[in-house]
Amino acid sequence: MGETRFKCGLEAVLAILGGKWKPLILFHLASGAKRTGELRKLVTNVSEKMLIQHLKELTEDGVVRRIDFQTVPPHVEYVLTDFGRSLAEVLAPLCAWGTRHTSEVAAIVRNRECAPEVA
Amino acid sequence: MGETRFKCGLEAVLAILGGKWKPLILFHLASGAKRTGELRKLVTNVSEKMLIQHLKELTEDGVVRRIDFQTVPPHVEYVLTDFGRSLAEVLAPLCAWGTRHTSEVAAIVRNRECAPEVA
Repeated sequence: MGETRFKCGLEAVLAILGGKWKPLILFHLASGAKRTGELRKLVTNVSEKMLIQHLKELTEDGVVRRIDFQTVPPHVEYVLTDFGRSLAEVLAPLCAWGTRHTSEVAAIVRNRECAPEVA
Repeated sequence: MGETRFKCGLEAVLAILGGKWKPLILFHLASGAKRTGELRKLVTNVSEKMLIQHLKELTEDGVVRRIDFQTVPPHVEYVLTDFGRSLAEVLAPLCAWGTRHTSEVAAIVRNRECAPEVA
């Protein structure tokens, strides 16, 4: 591929956070280390398989660190790296927007479900 | 589906911006109205089909307004609504993060391309 170039900063962000559940994983790890099972409950509708895949990619990308406590039974936790924490921080204004507009967005989503399918 | 509930503000944002190219479409419309052809050049790697689909969904969700100048040949532009503009504004810190970390992210992406595939 040669040199990687981004036309704008947002493209660089999406290269890291582009996976469907990755922003939510980051958001929930911002409040502290979590086990896979905890994340599973927090990230609505994510499957076990997708969660593990996303955590693997985020770990490889240096956003998340996997901590294996080397116990029997196994105990593994995921925690944000400094790099991941800096990214989670800039998600905060987005979260605040979503909280402010929750009822509007809920109405939009309901409207989609009611809309007739036109081919 | 009954009532739509979001566990956090970010889920509401993703309900609107969840499509692969939607954040970039918003970002580029933040600098002013654009024709489809202009967006096609600005949004790296998007196909014509996906761009049109995303613009249709963003229009239905009230994020973007489609302006048809009713001319021959047709001239159509897309512009952010007030709602869309408020969302584009909270993307700005993300863009700034990406600009600040461009070289790190480029190195991460290069590293992925070099990594051996292990089954």
